[in-house]
Amino acid sequence: MIIVMQRQAPKDQIERVLEEIKRYEGLKPIPLIGTERTVIAVIGDERVLDERHIASLPGVSNVMPVLRPYKLASRETKYESTVVKCGNGVKIGGKTVVVMAGPCSVESDAQIEEAAKAVKKAGSTILRGGAFKPRTTPYSFQGLGRKGIQMLEIAAKKHGLVSISEVMDVRDVEFVARHIDILQIGARNMQNFDLLKEVGKTKKPVMLKRGLSATIKEFLLAAEYILAQGNQDVILCERGIRTFEDETRNTLCIATVPIVKELSHLPIIVDPSHGTGKINLIAPMSRAAIAAGADGIMVEVHTNPDTALCDADQALNEDKFKNLMGEIKPIVKAVGRTM
Amino acid sequence: MIIVMQRQAPKDQIERVLEEIKRYEGLKPIPLIGTERTVIAVIGDERVLDERHIASLPGVSNVMPVLRPYKLASRETKYESTVVKCGNGVKIGGKTVVVMAGPCSVESDAQIEEAAKAVKKAGSTILRGGAFKPRTTPYSFQGLGRKGIQMLEIAAKKHGLVSISEVMDVRDVEFVARHIDILQIGARNMQNFDLLKEVGKTKKPVMLKRGLSATIKEFLLAAEYILAQGNQDVILCERGIRTFEDETRNTLCIATVPIVKELSHLPIIVDPSHGTGKINLIAPMSRAAIAAGADGIMVEVHTNPDTALCDADQALNEDKFKNLMGEIKPIVKAVGRTM
Amino acid sequence: MIIVMQRQAPKDQIERVLEEIKRYEGLKPIPLIGTERTVIAVIGDERVLDERHIASLPGVSNVMPVLRPYKLASRETKYESTVVKCGNGVKIGGKTVVVMAGPCSVESDAQIEEAAKAVKKAGSTILRGGAFKPRTTPYSFQGLGRKGIQMLEIAAKKHGLVSISEVMDVRDVEFVARHIDILQIGARNMQNFDLLKEVGKTKKPVMLKRGLSATIKEFLLAAEYILAQGNQDVILCERGIRTFEDETRNTLCIATVPIVKELSHLPIIVDPSHGTGKINLIAPMSRAAIAAGADGIMVEVHTNPDTALCDADQALNEDKFKNLMGEIKPIVKAVGRTM
Amino acid sequence: MIIVMQRQAPKDQIERVLEEIKRYEGLKPIPLIGTERTVIAVIGDERVLDERHIASLPGVSNVMPVLRPYKLASRETKYESTVVKCGNGVKIGGKTVVVMAGPCSVESDAQIEEAAKAVKKAGSTILRGGAFKPRTTPYSFQGLGRKGIQMLEIAAKKHGLVSISEVMDVRDVEFVARHIDILQIGARNMQNFDLLKEVGKTKKPVMLKRGLSATIKEFLLAAEYILAQGNQDVILCERGIRTFEDETRNTLCIATVPIVKELSHLPIIVDPSHGTGKINLIAPMSRAAIAAGADGIMVEVHTNPDTALCDADQALNEDKFKNLMGEIKPIVKAVGRTM
Repeated sequence: MIIVMQRQAPKDQIERVLEEIKRYEGLKPIPLIGTERTVIAVIGDERVLDERHIASLPGVSNVMPVLRPYKLASRETKYESTVVKCGNGVKIGGKTVVVMAGPCSVESDAQIEEAAKAVKKAGSTILRGGAFKPRTTPYSFQGLGRKGIQMLEIAAKKHGLVSISEVMDVRDVEFVARHIDILQIGARNMQNFDLLKEVGKTKKPVMLKRGLSATIKEFLLAAEYILAQGNQDVILCERGIRTFEDETRNTLCIATVPIVKELSHLPIIVDPSHGTGKINLIAPMSRAAIAAGADGIMVEVHTNPDTALCDADQALNEDKFKNLMGEIKPIVKAVGRTM
Repeated sequence: MIIVMQRQAPKDQIERVLEEIKRYEGLKPIPLIGTERTVIAVIGDERVLDERHIASLPGVSNVMPVLRPYKLASRETKYESTVVKCGNGVKIGGKTVVVMAGPCSVESDAQIEEAAKAVKKAGSTILRGGAFKPRTTPYSFQGLGRKGIQMLEIAAKKHGLVSISEVMDVRDVEFVARHIDILQIGARNMQNFDLLKEVGKTKKPVMLKRGLSATIKEFLLAAEYILAQGNQDVILCERGIRTFEDETRNTLCIATVPIVKELSHLPIIVDPSHGTGKINLIAPMSRAAIAAGADGIMVEVHTNPDTALCDADQALNEDKFKNLMGEIKPIVKAVGRTM
Repeated sequence: MIIVMQRQAPKDQIERVLEEIKRYEGLKPIPLIGTERTVIAVIGDERVLDERHIASLPGVSNVMPVLRPYKLASRETKYESTVVKCGNGVKIGGKTVVVMAGPCSVESDAQIEEAAKAVKKAGSTILRGGAFKPRTTPYSFQGLGRKGIQMLEIAAKKHGLVSISEVMDVRDVEFVARHIDILQIGARNMQNFDLLKEVGKTKKPVMLKRGLSATIKEFLLAAEYILAQGNQDVILCERGIRTFEDETRNTLCIATVPIVKELSHLPIIVDPSHGTGKINLIAPMSRAAIAAGADGIMVEVHTNPDTALCDADQALNEDKFKNLMGEIKPIVKAVGRTM
Repeated sequence: MIIVMQRQAPKDQIERVLEEIKRYEGLKPIPLIGTERTVIAVIGDERVLDERHIASLPGVSNVMPVLRPYKLASRETKYESTVVKCGNGVKIGGKTVVVMAGPCSVESDAQIEEAAKAVKKAGSTILRGGAFKPRTTPYSFQGLGRKGIQMLEIAAKKHGLVSISEVMDVRDVEFVARHIDILQIGARNMQNFDLLKEVGKTKKPVMLKRGLSATIKEFLLAAEYILAQGNQDVILCERGIRTFEDETRNTLCIATVPIVKELSHLPIIVDPSHGTGKINLIAPMSRAAIAAGADGIMVEVHTNPDTALCDADQALNEDKFKNLMGEIKPIVKAVGRTM
C-alpha cells in the first residue's frame, strides 16, 4: 500500500500513520520524504489493512493499494484454470465451449419440454429456464416459482441436459439446490451478499452474473464471497454493463473475458441475449465472445417466441438457434477448442 | 403505446398486431399508414400491455410507451405530496427539512450512545447507524447484526430520536421492523425484489436508496413494489450514481430531487456522504440538495472518526457536524422551509 | 414523428400543434384522442421537422421521432455496402479484412522506415503514424507536425503501403490530403463540425473515430457531415467509449460493428489498442472484432516500444505483431473472408 | 510517482527502471523490496516524467502519479482565487454571482435587441447568444456566423452588457475576439487543442465548457492549454456529463463546483439549461449551483421561445426569467454573496 500525505502534513500526523501500520504484524512502513509531499510505502501483505480506515487518518491525502483485494478468486493464488463439473459429464472452463440455452421463463410443462428437445437436438448440453424472475415492475409476470423449478428439472433430466436457473431469495436456495444443477445469481443480486453467502454454503456450481454497474474488481469480489464459504465451483457471466449507449439494452463488454482470464482462474460465460437485447446481435456477439476466449455462451431460445411471457424480443426460435450453433462452430475451431 | 412497424412489414403482420391489441378490453389500435412505415397507435390504458411482448411480434420495429409504467408512486395518481410520519412527531415530506445523522456502523453501546448525544445536541431528530453492512469484500467488517440493531434502538429511545437502519436479508425484516423506526433499503438492494415485497408488508416507513446505476424510472418502479404491498410510507433517497468521473466516489445527481418531486408524491432525501465520499464536499452538497428542494439529508457522523470501522473518510466529527447544521440553516430558510 | 401532448392540454394547444405541422408540405398530422392524453401522429418524411422546436410548443409533453435522423449514411438510403478504395489496390469494406499498423507517433525518418518495413513484412497493407497528436496535457509531446506527415509519406511510398494519419486543425487539411492516403479524424474531434466539413471537401478517404461518449446515432450523424460535403469515402472506427470500468482505458464496444453494419452501408474498423490500452488485450479483442464482422483493425506497432514517445504501453513490438497476424488469420477464414 | 513492478520482475528490469529515472535531473528512485512485489518510489517533481513511457518499460505493472498533472490551473500553484475582469465593471469569481442570459442562437437584429432589453431589465449583466452553432446533424440551423456576432455586439453595447459567444473554428478566433467580450469554447471542443491554443493567444477572457465525458482532471488540463499560452482569464463552466440517466439530457454534476474550488483558483459557472434540457429544472438547479458555491449561472432566455430556431425546449421566456432571478436572490444572500 502507498499512502500519500497531504502537502503540509505535520510530523506528528506522519508519525501517527507510521504507528498505525506498525500495529500490524508483518507490515513495515517506509516514509519517503519528497520535495512536495511525504509518501509512506507499506511493505508486507497489505490486505490486512482497511484502506478506508487508513484514508481517514489525519493528514492522509490518498491511499493506493498495490495488491488486488481478492485472494481466492485470483490467478496469483491458484494458477491453474478452474474446471467446474456440472454433472452429466458437462464441464465448464476446459477445452469444450458450452452453450446454455432455453427460455427466459418456464411457462408450462409442455413449453419447457419442447424447449429441452430443441436445445438437445441442436447439440447443446445445458438447459436454462427462469422460475423466479427479477422484473423491473411489480406488474410483470414474476415466474412460476418452485413449480417452475420442478418443471425445468423434469425436462432437463428427460433429455439428459444439465439444468440452470436463477435463485433470488435466500429462503429458496436449499430448494433450488436440491432440484437444479447450476444455481444462477442474477445481475441485480450480484451484491446481495446474504444470497452470495447462502449459495456459497451449497455444494452446487454457481453462475454469478456481473452487475449492471459493477467493475471487474467488484465482480471478482462478489465471487470471493461465494468462494470464501467453501464453494469452489463458481462460473462468471458477463451480461453487459450500463452505459449511455441506447442502441442496445446494455453494453456487452467483451474485454471482460480476457481480463478475467488474466486476473482469475474462474471460467467465464457470455450472455449476448441480455447483453444486447436484440436478436440480430446474438450471433455476431456470440462469435466475438468465443473468439475472445469465453468458455461458453448463454442464449434465450423459445420454440414459440411470440407467445413468450417475457423478453421475447431477444429469444431465438428453433431455426435461428440452429443457425447460431452452425455459425459459432468455425470460431470454436479457430481458437483451438471443441463444442 | 405507439408501435412502429418495420419498413417492409407485410399486411398480415400488421393485421396480427392489430388483433393482438384488440384482445385487451379497453384498448383500440389505430393504424397510420405512413410514406415509409406503418405506425399503430393504441388508445386506452396501455399499461395492461407487456411492452416486450408487443416488441417481439413479427414485423414490429419498436414500441414507445406513452404513459409512465408506475402508478401508485406517480403524482398523476396522487397529486398531494406524501408526508411520512416516523414517530416522535417527526415527519418527512412536509415543511420541515430533516437531518438523519449518525455513524456508518454501530460499533458499541458507548459509541452509539455518544453519537446519539451529539446528534441530538446539534438539533437533529433522526439517528442512523448500520448493523447489517453491505461490504464489497467479504474480508471487511460486516456489522454487529441484530445486536447492533438493539444498541441503536436503546440509544435512539434514550435521546428521543427516531431511528433508521438498513435491512439486507428478508429473514431479518420482521426483527428490524420491531426495533427500528425507519427501515432502510440500501442501493445494492434496490432491485432485490423479494426484500422490497417483505418490507412492503410491514407497517414501518421505508427509506429506499437509489441503485448505483438505476434510472429514475427504475427507482420509482422499485418504490412501486413496496407501495403495491400496501405500505404507503416510502421515502426515496438519492445517493449518487456511477459514472466515469473519479474525483468523487459517485456522482451525486441533484437533479433527481426536482424530477422526483414532479413525477411522484413521495418525499426525497439526499445522502452527500456516500454520494461524494469526501468530507469536504458534504457541506456544499447538503446546501445544494436543500436548495434544489430535498426534504432532508442523511450524513455520517462519528464522534471519533479515525477509529471508525468503516467509511471513516466521509464521516464528520462533532464539530464539523455542528458547522454543517449552521451552514444549511440559511438555505433552509431561503427556500421557505424550517428545520 | 409522434407528438405526445400533456395530460390536460387544452384544445387550442392541440390545434396550434396541428397548424404547425400542416405548414410543412408533405406532412399530415393525425390527432388521436386517448383516455388520458392526446397523441398526434405525423405522416410523411418527418426529417424536415425540428424535433426540439416541436417539443417546445405549449402543451407538448414529448416527441418521438420514427425515422432515423441520418440519410446519406443510412443503409435504408443506399442498400449496398460501400467499399472504399484507398490506392495501391487496397479496399476497405469488401471481402478482405485490412490491418492498419504503425507507431502512435512518427518520431524520425529511421523509426518510421523501420516500422514500415516491419508492417509490410508481417503482411499488412496500411501504415499508420501520428504527426499531429491530440494530447490531454500541454506538457506532452505534440507530434512532429507537417514534417512527420512527410516522413510518413516517404516511408509508406517506399514500401508500397497506404498511409493514414490524423488531422486536427482545419488549416492543415489541404496539406495532409496532398501527402497522405487516408485522413483520420480522432475521437476528440468527432464533433468538430468545421473539421468534418473541411475533410468532406477533399477527395481523400476519411476514417472517422467514434467519440468517447458518442452514441452510435451521433457517430453516424458525424459521418453524415462528411458525406453531405460530397465525400463518399468514409470509414468508421470504433475505439472504445468511456464508462465506469477502470481495468481498461476505455470500454471497447464490439456490438458497434454489427449495429453499424445493419444501420449503415459504411465500412467499420476496430482499434483495440486505444480501445483497451493494454497490450495483452489486443490479440483477443482483434479476434473478437473480426469475428463480429469488422472490416479491419488498427493497431499500434513500434519496433522499439520502450523508447516510444507516446502510448508505448499499448504498442506491439515486431514479434508480437507477427503473432497477432497469425492469431487473426483463422478467425478471418472462419467468417468467410480473406486477409 | 509510484512504480509497481510485476510479481516476478527480474533484477535487470528493476535496474532498467532505476536507470531511466536517474536520467532526469532532480529525480531520485527508491526501490522498496516487498514480500510480493518490488515498488519504486520516485522523489522529486515527477511531472517531468511521461507516465505512459514509464508504464511501458519491461516488468512494470502499473504507475501511480502522486502529483496532479496540471500546474497553472492548480490552487497549489496560485492560492488566491482568480477574478476575471470582463469589461463594464463585470467581474467573475469575486463576491458577486453573475447571470449570463440570452438566446441559444442569435436570429435577427430585432430578436437579440429584444433579448438584451429583457436580460438587462431583469438585472443581469452578461448577454449570451450563439452565432456559430455546433449542431449534431448537418441538417439543423448552423447559426448566422460572423453576422450573428456583429448583431450580438451591437445589442450588448447598446444596453451596457458584457457579451459572450462561442467560437468553433480557429479561423474565426481573431474576428470573434475583436467583437465579443468573452470567448466561449463549447463542450464538444473542450479537447480541440488547436482551438484552445488559439484562444489562449488572445487577450480576451475565455469560458471553457466541460466536455460531455471529460473528467475534472481533463477539464483542468484543457484549461491548462489556454493558461499555458499566457491567457490567465479562464472561466470554467459545468454543463452536465453523459450518463445512463435519460430523464434529463445530461447529468448536471453540481459537485464539480466545490471540487474545482478546491483544486483550482479559476472561477466556475453552471449551465442548468444544457445541463438538464428541461425548463422546469432550471430554477431548482440554479439554486443548487449557487448554494454549492458557483460563481454564476448561464441560462437560455428567449423572448418568444416557441419560434426559436434551436433548443427552445430549454429556453425561459421573459416572465420565467424574472421569476428565476427572484428565486436565486435569497440563495445568493444565504451563501453570503451579492448579485
